[in-house]
Amino acid sequence: MQTDLPAPADPTTVANSITLTDSDSHVLVLVANLGSTSFKYRLYDMADERCLARGAVERIGDAESKCTASIGDWSDERTMSVPDHGVAVEACLTQLTDPDHGAISDASEVAAIGFKAVHGGRLSGVFRVDDDVLDAMAEMNAAAPAHNPPYIAAMKAMRSRFDLPLVAAFETSFHQTIPAARKEYAIPRKWADELHLRKWGFHGASHRYIATRSAELLGRSDARVISCHLGGSSSLTAIESGQSVMTTMGMTPQTGLPQNNRVGDFDPFALPLIMQRTGMTLDETLAHLASQGGLLGLSGRSGDIRDLREAAAAGDANSRLALDVFVEEIRRHLGGMMVALGGVDAIVFTAGIGENDSELREAVCARLEAFGIVMDPIANKAVEGESTFHADSSRTQLWVIPTNEEIVVARQTVAVLQQTPS
Amino acid sequence: MQTDLPAPADPTTVANSITLTDSDSHVLVLVANLGSTSFKYRLYDMADERCLARGAVERIGDAESKCTASIGDWSDERTMSVPDHGVAVEACLTQLTDPDHGAISDASEVAAIGFKAVHGGRLSGVFRVDDDVLDAMAEMNAAAPAHNPPYIAAMKAMRSRFDLPLVAAFETSFHQTIPAARKEYAIPRKWADELHLRKWGFHGASHRYIATRSAELLGRSDARVISCHLGGSSSLTAIESGQSVMTTMGMTPQTGLPQNNRVGDFDPFALPLIMQRTGMTLDETLAHLASQGGLLGLSGRSGDIRDLREAAAAGDANSRLALDVFVEEIRRHLGGMMVALGGVDAIVFTAGIGENDSELREAVCARLEAFGIVMDPIANKAVEGESTFHADSSRTQLWVIPTNEEIVVARQTVAVLQQTPS
Repeated sequence: MQTDLPAPADPTTVANSITLTDSDSHVLVLVANLGSTSFKYRLYDMADERCLARGAVERIGDAESKCTASIGDWSDERTMSVPDHGVAVEACLTQLTDPDHGAISDASEVAAIGFKAVHGGRLSGVFRVDDDVLDAMAEMNAAAPAHNPPYIAAMKAMRSRFDLPLVAAFETSFHQTIPAARKEYAIPRKWADELHLRKWGFHGASHRYIATRSAELLGRSDARVISCHLGGSSSLTAIESGQSVMTTMGMTPQTGLPQNNRVGDFDPFALPLIMQRTGMTLDETLAHLASQGGLLGLSGRSGDIRDLREAAAAGDANSRLALDVFVEEIRRHLGGMMVALGGVDAIVFTAGIGENDSELREAVCARLEAFGIVMDPIANKAVEGESTFHADSSRTQLWVIPTNEEIVVARQTVAVLQQTPS
Repeated sequence: MQTDLPAPADPTTVANSITLTDSDSHVLVLVANLGSTSFKYRLYDMADERCLARGAVERIGDAESKCTASIGDWSDERTMSVPDHGVAVEACLTQLTDPDHGAISDASEVAAIGFKAVHGGRLSGVFRVDDDVLDAMAEMNAAAPAHNPPYIAAMKAMRSRFDLPLVAAFETSFHQTIPAARKEYAIPRKWADELHLRKWGFHGASHRYIATRSAELLGRSDARVISCHLGGSSSLTAIESGQSVMTTMGMTPQTGLPQNNRVGDFDPFALPLIMQRTGMTLDETLAHLASQGGLLGLSGRSGDIRDLREAAAAGDANSRLALDVFVEEIRRHLGGMMVALGGVDAIVFTAGIGENDSELREAVCARLEAFGIVMDPIANKAVEGESTFHADSSRTQLWVIPTNEEIVVARQTVAVLQQTPS
């Protein structure tokens, strides 16, 4: 752990509420994380990027929903009827404006709600949500069936209830700088142009955070960095001078590394054989690969790497196989990125697995001495928060950097508000 | 070009016919290369691996087929009716036993016909063709629709006409040594076990030839080699101590690198979007990706890299893009293999493009100095036959080695005959 570093925006703690006597200098942004039946949020004061509050509404659409909020030392939990995401935002604002404990005195103090949106196809970047943005997302429903439809429904519910600007920061936007030669599939140009069929990449907010933060930590803006976002879903991104130049996910978030229960890279030409032998339709086959594959499929046991470590330690061969396939796939993509970058100044591990699983980091970094990458196994086990774990002899720095996707979305939201004032 | 090297089996010239006075020491093997309407062959004397004859029967099934043979200085061309591959073998044997110019005096001198067979699913290795082998191939028809059905038909036609042993050397067999962690997809174990769904890999005869020949040329059997078979179809294989430990093709020969007109790695979860927007069925979509993709799809012009070089030089942007995507994909897989091997002693280029396209080799080997891989651009341009083209400072040797898949099949055929005498 290095100690003389610039402090990162804190992703985990919540500042005490502030009195906005000088409200003009404070842009408040609510960053939302939408699930099909959940709404999680953080409220940021963008003057100093402090997190003022966080909370969640769960089980939206059920008879009773749980609304939790954490503002400074105050924690609140309420049960109420929340039929849709529009009402969820209302519930959240009610808690944020609590007369005794609230972070703000009036809902109008919130400048905008920013979202990580997944797939906008022809729209990749950060946009105020309007009909065209919703249309562009709907056009990609077939490519992101688990993500786009619930986001569209939630955004529509919010728009019908508030004037508050909604800002969609697409997960693909950080990857717009990837050169065409690493972005295009070997398909007819017509399909690429008309269906927007290319390797868009995802996890953009997280990889962008790592790009920014690693430049601060390395003290240089021209570094070649490989960002390994390893968690519930995982991807690697090669970064050169702060820009994405290659990533592992493709047209959909299903490709690239194996995920907890999703297959990752797979051979489309094997689909007819599966369908012929199982009697499943294409949709059923893909749904199976997207829910019964990944670490879960390999192990036949669990998609959670902690369960697999336990089972593998107890001798379960398929759990061991699942861990080994995951490592080999990370290393395969890592190597491709090392070549693309022509060498790597830092490899950064982030997200749930990347930050917490030292065994995985050790396996990924093993036997790379020939490339000047040497891990310090003791430092690796001692990682806590932002830390290095390379040996002194290593030409490449090895880092753990906790990610902070929300602050990236908040920054992007502010930037859009400034570019296109309502 | 190094000159003090052990001589390779010559893939291109044909020895003069020999008189088999000492026939017991000479095992003669006919190596067949089957197309759906063609039969090409070479006849080897395995005592010294000399190629005694070569020939082809084209347009099988048409009213008139052309049968060519080249034996020593004698070339023969005949036109006749050849309804199936069984008759094609008869025509070939008639030429081989020509009383004046033939390579052999009687058809019975041929010990066996060996084939490169593509996909045997549960059968991966080298086998005498029997009903079980044909059944195993038929089970994989859906995974190799362009290859398996015509091979099965041709083998059946031959079996119905001859007692000559037929030996199938599956293209997957060299890759049997790949460890499970690099061979298994992240799919339910049931599908892997019951559908034989894993990364089988192909081009096994070529990569095996490179493994054997590079060990001879490097003078060591423990080398780490990356074999780049780049031609009409392309794949890379990582070789450690003569064994395949990783390859780019997967369950079918469609995955991995982009091919001349085949897509290579692609996102299966993009298929519903294509089908929805084009109205094509799954089979039509896959057929389109397998015939209108690859370099042809990217360029919109040609799948032949020579055409693309010409068009790119004349300023055609899509032809340039096709070349660049091809290079980037080769480099991506190369990097993955470098990491898997923990360093690489030699990178070998082979097959039509690998042997002949110096610009491609230069692009693939560019900017790898950080990994100790340094090309000599002048030596690269001067490559002819078996040649090195690395700089003196390079830790990794760079080679061009012309491949010889036929001699590998001939060797494998002899090995099977010895193991299982009829």
